[in-house]
Order: sequence, then C-alpha cells, then structure tokens
Amino acid sequence: MKRIVDLNSDLGEGFGLWTMGDDACILQYVTSANIACGFHAGDPQTMLRTVQGAHERKAAVGAHPGYPDLAGFGRRPMSCSPEDVYAFCLYQIGALAAVCRAEGVSLCHVKPHGALYTQSSIDHRLAAAVAHATHDAAPDLILLGLAGTEHEVAAREVGVRFAAEVFADRAYMPDGSLMSRSRTGSVLDDPVTVAARALQIVEDGTVEAEGGVLIAVQADSICLHGDNPAACRIAAAVRDILNEAGVRLRPLREVLSR
Amino acid sequence: MKRIVDLNSDLGEGFGLWTMGDDACILQYVTSANIACGFHAGDPQTMLRTVQGAHERKAAVGAHPGYPDLAGFGRRPMSCSPEDVYAFCLYQIGALAAVCRAEGVSLCHVKPHGALYTQSSIDHRLAAAVAHATHDAAPDLILLGLAGTEHEVAAREVGVRFAAEVFADRAYMPDGSLMSRSRTGSVLDDPVTVAARALQIVEDGTVEAEGGVLIAVQADSICLHGDNPAACRIAAAVRDILNEAGVRLRPLREVLSR
Amino acid sequence: MKRIVDLNSDLGEGFGLWTMGDDACILQYVTSANIACGFHAGDPQTMLRTVQGAHERKAAVGAHPGYPDLAGFGRRPMSCSPEDVYAFCLYQIGALAAVCRAEGVSLCHVKPHGALYTQSSIDHRLAAAVAHATHDAAPDLILLGLAGTEHEVAAREVGVRFAAEVFADRAYMPDGSLMSRSRTGSVLDDPVTVAARALQIVEDGTVEAEGGVLIAVQADSICLHGDNPAACRIAAAVRDILNEAGVRLRPLREVLSR
Amino acid sequence: MKRIVDLNSDLGEGFGLWTMGDDACILQYVTSANIACGFHAGDPQTMLRTVQGAHERKAAVGAHPGYPDLAGFGRRPMSCSPEDVYAFCLYQIGALAAVCRAEGVSLCHVKPHGALYTQSSIDHRLAAAVAHATHDAAPDLILLGLAGTEHEVAAREVGVRFAAEVFADRAYMPDGSLMSRSRTGSVLDDPVTVAARALQIVEDGTVEAEGGVLIAVQADSICLHGDNPAACRIAAAVRDILNEAGVRLRPLREVLSR
Repeated sequence: MKRIVDLNSDLGEGFGLWTMGDDACILQYVTSANIACGFHAGDPQTMLRTVQGAHERKAAVGAHPGYPDLAGFGRRPMSCSPEDVYAFCLYQIGALAAVCRAEGVSLCHVKPHGALYTQSSIDHRLAAAVAHATHDAAPDLILLGLAGTEHEVAAREVGVRFAAEVFADRAYMPDGSLMSRSRTGSVLDDPVTVAARALQIVEDGTVEAEGGVLIAVQADSICLHGDNPAACRIAAAVRDILNEAGVRLRPLREVLSR
Repeated sequence: MKRIVDLNSDLGEGFGLWTMGDDACILQYVTSANIACGFHAGDPQTMLRTVQGAHERKAAVGAHPGYPDLAGFGRRPMSCSPEDVYAFCLYQIGALAAVCRAEGVSLCHVKPHGALYTQSSIDHRLAAAVAHATHDAAPDLILLGLAGTEHEVAAREVGVRFAAEVFADRAYMPDGSLMSRSRTGSVLDDPVTVAARALQIVEDGTVEAEGGVLIAVQADSICLHGDNPAACRIAAAVRDILNEAGVRLRPLREVLSR
Repeated sequence: MKRIVDLNSDLGEGFGLWTMGDDACILQYVTSANIACGFHAGDPQTMLRTVQGAHERKAAVGAHPGYPDLAGFGRRPMSCSPEDVYAFCLYQIGALAAVCRAEGVSLCHVKPHGALYTQSSIDHRLAAAVAHATHDAAPDLILLGLAGTEHEVAAREVGVRFAAEVFADRAYMPDGSLMSRSRTGSVLDDPVTVAARALQIVEDGTVEAEGGVLIAVQADSICLHGDNPAACRIAAAVRDILNEAGVRLRPLREVLSR
Repeated sequence: MKRIVDLNSDLGEGFGLWTMGDDACILQYVTSANIACGFHAGDPQTMLRTVQGAHERKAAVGAHPGYPDLAGFGRRPMSCSPEDVYAFCLYQIGALAAVCRAEGVSLCHVKPHGALYTQSSIDHRLAAAVAHATHDAAPDLILLGLAGTEHEVAAREVGVRFAAEVFADRAYMPDGSLMSRSRTGSVLDDPVTVAARALQIVEDGTVEAEGGVLIAVQADSICLHGDNPAACRIAAAVRDILNEAGVRLRPLREVLSR
C-alpha cells in the first residue's frame, strides 16, 4: 500500500459570533482544510480568518460547499435539482477562491458537505453537478469525495482529478457507505481507536465495517471531523501513529502525483 | 465633452421564484450589466442566467455586491465594519467571478449596491474596503461609483481604475448627491425627460439639481434603473437620443481607455 | 352533495420588495386566505398588509407555514425531523397569530405549504407534527389539508378539526395525489376548465384524474393558486359558476359546522 | 431603596447546531429569561428547549426580538423604519408566545435586543414601534428596557407597563448610557466587582460611571449577560450577595406590583 496520505478536516464551521470546533488546534495536524463557504456555515469574515490560519500552518485549502441551510448545518437532505446544485457549488467555490486570491493562497480542492456529500455520493446527476461546478470554477481543482462512489465516477466523466477519502472517525456499513449520523456509534471519539483505524486504512487498505466485516478502501486522504469534541486529540493521535509508521503526510496535490 | 459613454443598469435582481424588472428588455440597450450577487438579491441560478443574458447581448458584466439584507433589498443603511464590508464584497465578487468563468465571460467591474453604495460614497473607510476587495478579487477590475465622492478617492489610493457614473433617472441635490429615494420625485420615469438629461450629461457635462441649479458631472457611464416600471422605454429613449447625437455607447473598458 | 364550500388561496407570497400574484384581485373572490409566514415567503410587513387586506374583504385568515427555504419557495423537499417540523410550524403559526391579534382578526386555520404539504400528506410523522403544532398554537384552529391523506388521519388523532381541500386548478393522479409540478399540464390555467372542475367537485364529488379516470373527492374547500398567471380570472370564473349553481361560498368554520 | 429586584439574562442565543453561553447554569440564578426569537439568534427548536428550561427553573419568560441579522447577531445598527420594527417585533413576540402556549408557560415581557435595544433607547419612533408591538401582541406584556430612556417614555405613552433594568456587568457613561461594546472595559467580568455593583444598584440606587461619577439608577431588574465567559460565576456571585443582603429576587410581575 501507499506510504503517503493527506489528512483533511472540515474547518471554518462557525457563523458570525458562533464558533464550532477548535480550528487552531486541528490545523497543527492536518495537511488539508475544507472550508465552509457560507451556505451551511462560514460567513465571509470567518472564511478569511480560516484561510489565513490554514496558510500559516501550510495546510492546503479546499472549498466545502453545502446546501443553503444554516439552521440544519447542511445536514438535512434536500431535493435540489442538478441545476441548483451546480449553481450553488459554483457560487460557493468562487467566493472562497476570491478569499484565497486575496490571501495569496491557491485553492486546491472541492469537497461537498453534509447531506450534499451523502446524496451526491449515490446520485449520479448530483455528483455530476458538483464535478462540473468544480471543473468550471477552475480546471485544476481536485474533487475530494468518497472512494468508489458516484463522486469518483462523475469526476472521471467530467475530467476532474479525484481524490478518495476514507473516514477514520466514522463507522462504516458493510457496503462501504457511512453509518447514518442519527445512529449511536456512528461517530468514533476514542483517539486510540481512531488512530489505529487510520493506520490500518493506510497500511492495509481496509477498514472494519458494522458487524466486523473488513472492507477494502483506497485512501488518498483521511478525514477527521473538526466538530468532534475529541477532534484535536484524535488529530494528534492519528498524526503520531502515521508518523511513527513512516507514512508521509502531504497535501492532495502531492499525494495524487506520487 | 467626450463623445463616448457606457450605459449601465442593475440586473439580476430577482431571488428564487421572485422576479424584478425586465432584464431581457433592458439588455437590448445597455453596454454594462451590474449583477446582484446573492446578499440583497440574486440567487446562484439567477446569477447564471443573468450572466448568460448579458453575454448574449454583449453587455459587459460587473458584480453588484450589497449588504446581507434580502428583506430590505440592501437599501437599509447598516453599520458594518470596514472589515465586514471588505469580506462580504470579496465573497460576492468571487461568487460572480466563478459564474462568469463558467460562462466564458470576463468580469469587468464592481459597483456597490443600495445603502452600501450611498454609505461608501461618503465614508472613506467603507469606500476603501470596497476598493480593496475589488483590487484583491482581481487586479484589473474597474470600480464603478459616484463621481467626485469617496468612491473615486478610495479607488485612486488603492490603485483600482475608477469609472464615474451619473444617474439620468434620479434627482440630484445641489451638492451633487442623490435625492433620497424616500422623497417624491427622487426617481424620474418619463422617458423623454430622462433621455434629455442623459444627452445633457454627455454633451454638456451638467445635470440639473433640485431648485434648478446646474451641477457639473463627469460621466464615464450613465446609470438606468432596471426596477423602474418605465425602465425599458427609458433605456430605449436614452439609447436613441445618444445614437442620434453621435455619441458612441461602449463598455467601461473602452470608455476608460479612450 | 353539499351545497356549501370554502374557496381558499395562498396569499402574501411576496418577500421584501418582491411581489407574487395579484392578492388584491384574488381577495375579491375567495373566502379563506392562507398567508405565508416568513420561512418560504412573506416578511412581517407583507404579513401585516395581507391580513389587513383579507380582513377588509372578509376572507378568513389561515397560517401557511413552510420549510425554511426562501430560495426554493418551500417547494424543495427537505428531510426535516418531526421535531423540527413541529417547532417551525408552531413558530410560524404564532407569528401570524400575533399579526392577526394586532389587527383584530381571528386566526382560523393552518395549511402547510409546498413540499411540507406534499410530504406531510404521505408521511404520518410529519402530518402529526403539523397537527400537534396546530393544536398547541391554539386549540380551535382548523387544519386544512388534502382529503383522504395523512393530513386527515393525523388531525383526527390529535383532536384538531380537519377541512378537506380539493384543487380545481391542479391535475390529479388516479390515486388521488397531485401531479408533480415538474410535469407539463400539472397546473391548469383555463378559467372555463377550472370553473367546470370546481362545479363538478362540489356538485358531483368527483374530479377527473390523469387518463380520464373519475376519482371521488370530498371538498370542504377548493384551492385556487394565487401565483397562477390567470389566477384572478380563474377565481372570478369559479365564483361565478358556483354562485349561479346556488352553491354557498363560506369560510371554513361555517362549512364545517353545516 | 427597594428590597426586591428581578435578575434577567439573555438566553437561547444559539442557532441550529451552534451554541452560546451556558443557559442551564445561568437559569439556576436568574428570575427572568429573555429568549432570542429567530432573527438575530434562536431557531424554533432552540426556543422550545429554552422555554422548557426556564419553565423548569421557574424563571419568567420574555421575548427578546432583534434585527434580522444572524451574521451580525443583531448588534449591527440598521436603519429600519418604525413600520419595519413594529412588524418584526410583533412577528417575533408572536412566535415565542406560541412556543410558550405549547409549553403551558405565560409570556411575561419583551426586551429588545442588541442594536435594536440601543437605537430604540434614544429614538422615540423606534421605541414607540417596540412598545406598540408589545401592546398589540398581548395587552398585559411588560416592556423591559433601559431606565430613563425613550423605552420608558414610549411604554408610558402606549400604555404598556415598563420595567427598568440596570446592567451590573456593563460599564456606564456619565450620561447614563452604556459604554460601547467596541471599547475595552465595556464588559465587566470579575464576579466580585459585578456582585458589588449589583448590590450598590439595589441598595443605594447608584452605579459608578466612567471617570468615577456616581449616577442614580432605578432598577426593577438587573441584567447579567449570558454570553460573558464568566457569566455563570457572575450570576452566582450576584445572587449570593443579594440573598445575603436580604434582597428578594422575584420575577418582574412581582417586582412591579410591590
């Protein structure tokens, strides 16, 4: 298996005076930051501060567009048309791209958020809308999505580079999908457990799903959730275990060109 | 006086199912379209359609950022910090820039909307915030603002090209400011009157203010309001009178490089 | 069949400066006005003006709560929990109730809007959430919903009076559901056709569904869409045909206590 | 001086997944809870939970309406017309009133929030709009505002009962206004200092303003800010010092009828 992997986390998820997660701490450990773009979280000033923080820590910056649903944090499934999804992804990517440009940062990737992530992973038309928006916003952007899903299929069709992520802190179903957040045990919060899973993902290319089934996964990136109360300790533990195992942690562009 | 001028109008001011103004008609006559960017009007799909419409009609496209106030259409003065104004202008300009890129259109200018326009024309810190956002979003963007105000001062300081606009369909005060929209007679709706004012602006460099005083104006562009019920007939009348007088109607880039 | 029926329409569907439909005209003909409550349409000032207009025309006032989705006009299906639906219906009903109280008007009924209407008509948990919110906001409110669906079941369980509506200007499927708005022909706009359907609904208790099948309907109220371009002419035609046939047009309270 | 006073705090200031302040802790100490109503903070589910929490702790419930400005938390001054302010206060009060009704709680008072509070304390037309909305939403509601300001004048004119609040944790200017939040030292966070000020307010009817000037204050209620990081320790300290001094802590209705 490959000995290089990206470590990504969703950051900049506050809004106005409200904060979420300890971005400053997480940024010590990850190599990519997916930054909320204003529709489910992240106002313009928060976006600016988060890009600055990622830049200082040398984390690559990605856009993290979501459904227009602040009250539901973009986690409520919505039936938006592909035309809608294309347009609001393009909008959000462009907004973050301008913030990046102002800070002298290169926008690297796009990762859909929450219900948009989940729905587009199984609905080809939505995945294609996300991929087209990624392509049209800037041709060299990478689409970061769930390995082996419509994310990957759509990226290939549209001609966008794809990076596959695996979740070290989320429970998997035997079919390779994520266990619903509404279920107990869907989010793992023990740093030792999550770190061990991360290592297994990178070293063995497997992750244990519900019922103990081992499923094959191919990870260009491992996702750690910034809103997990134990997020920062988890990030440190994952980084440590991977470093000790000699795995190189690098941003997506380097991982994809290995 | 110069024999070349741009004709601009605020377009794309619907939101979701709600429409405002007859953009298709206005686009037959103007050379620049200032497109709402989602904060006071203009959802992503509306922005996309409006950019497409402007492109078909060969009107230059500008971003028209406003306060985050859908219910007030961005016309309610707000006390936002310069940091806030900088960040949300950058955000909105970037969002429209991505829409333009997707359509193969070059974003040409930025014009603040409504209360942001009025407040930044007299508050240097706000004007500087708008000018900096314009500069940082893309260095070749033109700031379109009110002649002889802080818009112009800030653009010069920040190193952004400035284009001065004059309103043919709004009443002026003797000091060169616009009469408040809350006053009767502040918006002119007779095509013949507005057309005559437009010609006088271009030919004589003057406009009649309240009380009959003639004030000197320098117009790179004449603004026509798209939400005026008579907007389309006004636009046609203005275009006709200027054409007949031999005035060339051209987008801002050409006017500024004359 | 009964010789008394209510005629309802969705009104107050503007937002800020944006308008939708010709409420003043429709209010000449209907006996009940379902007023948008701010989540999918209808800002507080629009709500106030619409309640005043309904009061002047002696139309009964109902709350028309929807999903929190201005850009989608509440027509995009969302996966909200029953707890969410209960809370935001309660919120919206209360907001309109206060506006009514200020105007000396009695709030009469509640009718869910758009995707909330459709989803709750087939999902018992959502229908129960709407019915509970209706009950808890004020015990004498009537729930206006789609005949023979979960709306009716939930209202009975919760102990809320139910009024069944039938759509004279929407195409029906053979199973009694409405044809999706995305299909051509789903919204009827010929006044003569709609009027004839309205009379048949009241006189015969039937409506013709797709394919010509006659389905039995029981109408306490007939709904006419205010956003139909022909809405006002349709409302006039329906009122005329029912008046000529001797059908009494009365608000829901009278219809239910007949 | 009077030996009875209400202790109030602004609660329910989260939105969706975002939280603010430790409401559960504060509710142990205050006798009145001012609950955000959705425009600057507080979604419907948060409102429901906060009313439930206040009810369990026997704190009286008040509506805390603010400007429609989530990103600015209602703290950015806006130029809204009195008609706008009247309508959106009525809307927000009604929304919370319905939530209270559902929980079997009586809505007790209304206190404007943030910039609406400050602007209406010095602008009679805005104060009158708030007072009218309070009156029209329910005739027995108490308006809780800043002593000796337009809040009090307007309440008297409109015929609404007025309760005067004094801030123990905010610095005062010599003219009796609050020091702007933008200034260092405007918010006090030492529990001992705040408690001593609270006691002086109740016992002596004075508070020390900038420069050491003693100003006379008349307090029906003392406000403690829930978003102060030390909020909970402050609330405990204030409650303790007042209890030890034999001051009775009671909700507004009892204080006003003393």
